Amino acid sequence: MAKMVSRTVDLRSDTVTKPTEAMRAAMAAADVDDDVLGNDPTALRLETEMARITGKDAALFVPSGTMGNLISVLVHCDIRGSEVILGDNAHIHIYENGGISTIGGVYPRTVKNNQDGTMDIDLIEAAIRDPREVLFEPTTRLICLENTHANTGGKCLSVEYTDKVGELAKKHGLKLHIDGARIFNASVALGIPVHRLVQAADSVSVCLSKGLGAPVGSVIVGSKSFIAKAKILRKTLGGGMRQVGILCAAALVAVQENVEKLKGDHKNAKILAEGLNQMKGIRIDVASMETNIIFFEVEESSTITAGKLCEYLEEHGVLVLQESSSIKL
Amino acid sequence: MAKMVSRTVDLRSDTVTKPTEAMRAAMAAADVDDDVLGNDPTALRLETEMARITGKDAALFVPSGTMGNLISVLVHCDIRGSEVILGDNAHIHIYENGGISTIGGVYPRTVKNNQDGTMDIDLIEAAIRDPREVLFEPTTRLICLENTHANTGGKCLSVEYTDKVGELAKKHGLKLHIDGARIFNASVALGIPVHRLVQAADSVSVCLSKGLGAPVGSVIVGSKSFIAKAKILRKTLGGGMRQVGILCAAALVAVQENVEKLKGDHKNAKILAEGLNQMKGIRIDVASMETNIIFFEVEESSTITAGKLCEYLEEHGVLVLQESSSIKL
Amino acid sequence: MAKMVSRTVDLRSDTVTKPTEAMRAAMAAADVDDDVLGNDPTALRLETEMARITGKDAALFVPSGTMGNLISVLVHCDIRGSEVILGDNAHIHIYENGGISTIGGVYPRTVKNNQDGTMDIDLIEAAIRDPREVLFEPTTRLICLENTHANTGGKCLSVEYTDKVGELAKKHGLKLHIDGARIFNASVALGIPVHRLVQAADSVSVCLSKGLGAPVGSVIVGSKSFIAKAKILRKTLGGGMRQVGILCAAALVAVQENVEKLKGDHKNAKILAEGLNQMKGIRIDVASMETNIIFFEVEESSTITAGKLCEYLEEHGVLVLQESSSIKL
Amino acid sequence: MAKMVSRTVDLRSDTVTKPTEAMRAAMAAADVDDDVLGNDPTALRLETEMARITGKDAALFVPSGTMGNLISVLVHCDIRGSEVILGDNAHIHIYENGGISTIGGVYPRTVKNNQDGTMDIDLIEAAIRDPREVLFEPTTRLICLENTHANTGGKCLSVEYTDKVGELAKKHGLKLHIDGARIFNASVALGIPVHRLVQAADSVSVCLSKGLGAPVGSVIVGSKSFIAKAKILRKTLGGGMRQVGILCAAALVAVQENVEKLKGDHKNAKILAEGLNQMKGIRIDVASMETNIIFFEVEESSTITAGKLCEYLEEHGVLVLQESSSIKL
Repeated sequence: MAKMVSRTVDLRSDTVTKPTEAMRAAMAAADVDDDVLGNDPTALRLETEMARITGKDAALFVPSGTMGNLISVLVHCDIRGSEVILGDNAHIHIYENGGISTIGGVYPRTVKNNQDGTMDIDLIEAAIRDPREVLFEPTTRLICLENTHANTGGKCLSVEYTDKVGELAKKHGLKLHIDGARIFNASVALGIPVHRLVQAADSVSVCLSKGLGAPVGSVIVGSKSFIAKAKILRKTLGGGMRQVGILCAAALVAVQENVEKLKGDHKNAKILAEGLNQMKGIRIDVASMETNIIFFEVEESSTITAGKLCEYLEEHGVLVLQESSSIKL
Repeated sequence: MAKMVSRTVDLRSDTVTKPTEAMRAAMAAADVDDDVLGNDPTALRLETEMARITGKDAALFVPSGTMGNLISVLVHCDIRGSEVILGDNAHIHIYENGGISTIGGVYPRTVKNNQDGTMDIDLIEAAIRDPREVLFEPTTRLICLENTHANTGGKCLSVEYTDKVGELAKKHGLKLHIDGARIFNASVALGIPVHRLVQAADSVSVCLSKGLGAPVGSVIVGSKSFIAKAKILRKTLGGGMRQVGILCAAALVAVQENVEKLKGDHKNAKILAEGLNQMKGIRIDVASMETNIIFFEVEESSTITAGKLCEYLEEHGVLVLQESSSIKL
Repeated sequence: MAKMVSRTVDLRSDTVTKPTEAMRAAMAAADVDDDVLGNDPTALRLETEMARITGKDAALFVPSGTMGNLISVLVHCDIRGSEVILGDNAHIHIYENGGISTIGGVYPRTVKNNQDGTMDIDLIEAAIRDPREVLFEPTTRLICLENTHANTGGKCLSVEYTDKVGELAKKHGLKLHIDGARIFNASVALGIPVHRLVQAADSVSVCLSKGLGAPVGSVIVGSKSFIAKAKILRKTLGGGMRQVGILCAAALVAVQENVEKLKGDHKNAKILAEGLNQMKGIRIDVASMETNIIFFEVEESSTITAGKLCEYLEEHGVLVLQESSSIKL
Repeated sequence: MAKMVSRTVDLRSDTVTKPTEAMRAAMAAADVDDDVLGNDPTALRLETEMARITGKDAALFVPSGTMGNLISVLVHCDIRGSEVILGDNAHIHIYENGGISTIGGVYPRTVKNNQDGTMDIDLIEAAIRDPREVLFEPTTRLICLENTHANTGGKCLSVEYTDKVGELAKKHGLKLHIDGARIFNASVALGIPVHRLVQAADSVSVCLSKGLGAPVGSVIVGSKSFIAKAKILRKTLGGGMRQVGILCAAALVAVQENVEKLKGDHKNAKILAEGLNQMKGIRIDVASMETNIIFFEVEESSTITAGKLCEYLEEHGVLVLQESSSIKL
C-alpha cells in the first residue's frame, strides 16, 4: 500500500535547487538594511562582487532573470519607437510573456537562431533598420544574445562571436545585451573568465538561482548610468526589495563556492545523456552537448510515448519536463 | 538654363495618384455633417457600400491603411498580454513603425513569408502559443494575412489558402485579419469578388487611396461589435474626423469607377516590366508578376548602380523608388 | 400631421459646420501630391501659413485636434516614465479617451482648473516632481494649457498668465504645450495676435474644423525638431494621409476668410445667452461669457427638465447637447 | 576626534527593520522548492494563511507592495482604455513611479483625499465615467483605497466607509482594490479583524516588510481567478522567484508573532509625538495620530530649519526623513 520513494531526483530544470547549509547559515547571519533606500550592506557586497566578476562598472540585484532582461531591454530602449533584435529561439522571445512589448512597448525583431545558439552576423545586420526610413520603421536600438543558449541545449557563444556582434552593434550605434542566465556555465565549459565573455556587452543579466543554487535572484551589470536607470525601473516594476541582503548573502555563497561545481554538473549531464542514448527509442545528440542541459527525443517508433515515459519516471521518483514544442527554463 | 520636363511620370508608388475630375466634383458637392457625432451621410454611404462589397456587417472610414491595421490588431488584441502572428515580410511588420507594439503593446511573432506571400500553414500552427504555457508565454489572439502581398511584389493570396488559414484560426479560437490594402487588385487579378476573398476574415482593412486613386483613406470592415470597438479606438488615436464626407465622396467614386481600371494597371505594369527586362543589367521575374507592383534589380555587373539609375531617370522626368532592402508602400 | 421644420439650427458644437462655397471650390481645384512622401504642395502651403500665424518654426497637418494633442504630449514625453501636468477640467483629461496613457504610457497629473480656465501657478509648481525623487516618482516633462478653455465655457487665457506658466516651465526644464483648439477665438476676443498668445509655448495644436469651419483637420506647430518627431508619430498613429491637400485647401480658406467672422459668433452667442437668461428656469452667467460657448442650466425648480427641453427644442428644429456632467467638444 | 554613536535610532520609515532571531531561524530552516513551477511549500503556507486572515479565496506572494499594487490595478484593468479612480494623495499616485500608466497604460483619475485618508463618496461617484460617453472617455474599471493612508499620517479607514465605497463600486460594476500596505496597523488601531476591514474589496495588497518586520515581501489576495491572472502578470514583471520560501518563512513569523506588537508601535509613536510637540518650534497634531506615522513641521519662525534639524539628529544617531513635499514610504 505504501508508496515508497526513498528520494526524488528532480531533473526538471536547474532552477529546481535547494540552498546549501552554507547558504542557509549565511542568510541567517546576514547583515541587512533597507535596500530600497540604498543601504543594505550585503546587497552592496554582492553587487560589487558581480561587477568585478563581469568586468563592468556597476551591478544591481533583481528578483529574477526575467526582470533582469526586462529592465535591460527597457533601459536601452527607453525612447518610444525602439526595436530590439533577438534570436527567434531566445528565452526573451519565447518564455518571458512578451513583456518587452506588452509592458514595455519595445518592438522585437527576430533573426533565426542556429543550432549553436548564434545568429548569422549578416542576418543581424540585415535586420537593423535603416535610420533614413525612420518615418516608416521603428528605430533599432539593441541586439540581444543569450549565453549559454538554453533552447538549443545550453550551447556556449564564443568570445570571437560575441566580439563580432559587439563590433556590429558599435558600427551601427546600437547597444548589446547578453542574457547571461547561465554565463557561468559557459565560462566553466569554455575555460574563459566571465568578464572576457561579456566584454563586448553593454549589459548582462546573470542568474544566481539556476545551476549556482542560490534560492532567489539575478544580477544585471553595466555602466554606472545604465545601472542608475535600471534602479528606477526596478522600483517601477516592483522589484525593489527591503532587507534583501538575506537573499544576497546566499547568492554570495553561490558565487564563491559553486562556480567550480558546474564542471561536475556538465560531466554528470553527459554521463546521463550517454546512458539514455543507449536505450532503445531515445535519441540524444550527445556530441553536441556542451553544458548542463539535456534534451532528448522519444522516437515515434518507440513503444512508449514521451508523456507515458514522464509518468513512469515520476512514479519511480524521477522528475523531468516534457515540452510541447519547447522547455520552460 | 531652363530645366524642361514636359511631363513627370511618377512611378514611385500607387499611392502617388491625383483625384479624377469626377472625384473633385463629388467632393465639391458632398453632403456632409459631423462624423465624430456619427451623422455624416456620405461617410455612412461609403461605409455601407464597403460593408456590402466585402460581405461584412459593418465598416468604418479611417485616415490611412496604417491606422486601419493598427486599429484592427488592437481591437482583436484588446487584453494586455496578446500576441499576433504575422509574416516576416508583412507591411505591418516592416513599414508601420512597429505601432502595434510601441503604441499598442501587442507582441508580434513572425512566420517566414514565402515568395508568393503565403506563410506555411504548419509554420503558422507551430507559432501559436500553447494556452497551457500562459504563465511563460503571451496569448496568441490573431493571425494577419496581406492580400495582395506588397513586399513579394503584389502577389495574390488564393481563396483556398485564405480559407485554410481561417479554419486554422477558428480551430485555435483566434481571429483572422487581412491587410487588404490592395484587395481590389487581388480581386481583379484572380477574377474573384472581394467578399469571397475575405470570407474567412474577422476584419479587413481596404485602402482606397492606392490604385483606386481616392485622395485619402481606408476602410476597415468586420462585425458590428468589432466596428463599435474600432470606432472608440479611432477616436483615441485621433482618427475621428468631422465633415469627412468630403473624402468619402471621392472614395465612393473610386470604388464605383476605378476598380475595373486596375486591370489596365496590371497590363501596363507587365508591359513596362517586359521592356525593362530586355535592358542589359536589369533583372525582373516577369512571369511571377500578378498585379501592379514592379520590383527590379540592377545587376552588380552592370555599368550603372541603382542609385545612379534613379538619378538618371529623375532627370528625365521618371520617378521611381530605390529601396535599401525593401520598398515603402 | 406633417412635421414641418423649415430649417434645422444645429447648436450642438462648433464642430458642426458645413464648408463654404469658397472651401468647396478650393478643394475641387486643389493642387495635390503624396503628403506621406512629403510632396503635397497645398499641405506645405497651409503648414507654412500656420507656422507664420503662430510664430513657430514648423507646422504639421493632422486629422484631428485629439491627434494633435496626443502627438504633442507624446513627443515631449518620448522617454518612458514621463509625467504631464494638466488641468482637471482639460479637454485632454476629460474627452480624449485617456490616450496619452492608454496609448502613450504618459502619466497625467492634474491640477485644479479655476473658473477662468487657469490653474494657480503655485499649484502647478507644487505638482512638479522633485527630480531627486526619481526613484519613486515619474519625471515631470510637460505642462499643458488650453486656450480658450472649453469646459469652463470658452474662457481666454491672457498673455500674462501664459507667459508666467512658460517661465515656470523654463525654470524647471519643462516644455509647455497649448491645446489651442480655439486659439483663434481667444485671439479675436482678446484682440491679440495668435503668435503672441502662444509665444511661451513649445508646441500648440490649433483646430481648423471648429469655429473656422474647415471640414477636417488641425495643425500642430513648434520647433523643427519637434515637428520632425511629430511627423514620425503621426505615421505611427496612422495620421499620415496621401493627397491631403484637398483638406488643406479648405483649411487655408478657413484661416484666410473666417477668423474675423468669429467676432460675429461671439456676439451671437452673447445675444442668444441674454435671451435665454430672461427665460424662467434657465440660468446663464452671461457676464462671464468671453467667446462662442454657451452653457446653461435648467434650474431644478423649473417645470421642465434639461432632457425634456432638449427634446422640445429638437422637435422645433434646434439641436443642443445635454451634458451628463460635462460637454463633449 | 572619535565620533561616538553608541546606537543609531532609525526612524526614517517602518520599512527600516531588521529581522528577528525567530525570523532568521525560520529562514535558515525553511522547506523550499521552485515557486515559479508552483511547488514551494512555505510560499503556499504563507499564501494560505494570508487568504485566511483577509477572508479571500486566494493569495500570492510578491517582492514588494509596489508590485502588489501594480499587479492588482493591471489585472482589474486588463483591457486597453481602462481608468482607475484613486486619491490625489495615494501612495500609488505619488510614489510608485506612475507605473500603472507608464508600464500598464491605465489612466489614473484622482479625487481629493481628505485629511482622514477618505475621498468623499459623491466625489468618487462624480469621477466615474458615463459609459455612454465611451467614444470620448476611458472606461472606469476600478476604485483604489489605501488603509492606513500613509500620506495623511497613517489614518485608518473605517469599515463603514470602506463598505460604502464597495457598494458604490458594485452599483457601477467596478472593482475595489485596497492598498493595505499597513492594513494590520489599521486592524490593531481599530480593533477590527483584517478580513472585516477588507470585506468589500475585490483585492488587497498587504505588506509584510513594514511594521511587521519581515525582511522582504507583500501578499496580494482576491478571488481565485484574480490570483490566477496575477500570477501571470507577476511572471511578466519578473516577480516570479524560485526558492522564495526563504522569505515566506520569515513573513510567516512576522504575521504570527508581530501583529500584536504593532500596538506598542502606535503607543511609542504617540509618546514620541507628545514629547516633540512640547519642543519650541515643532508642531504636531498629536490628537489626530492613529497609528505609527509621525509627521511634524518645523515652524518657519523657528531658529532651526528642517534640514539643519535632520543633520543635527543624524549627528546624534537619530535618522529621520525630510520630505520635500511628501514622504517616501
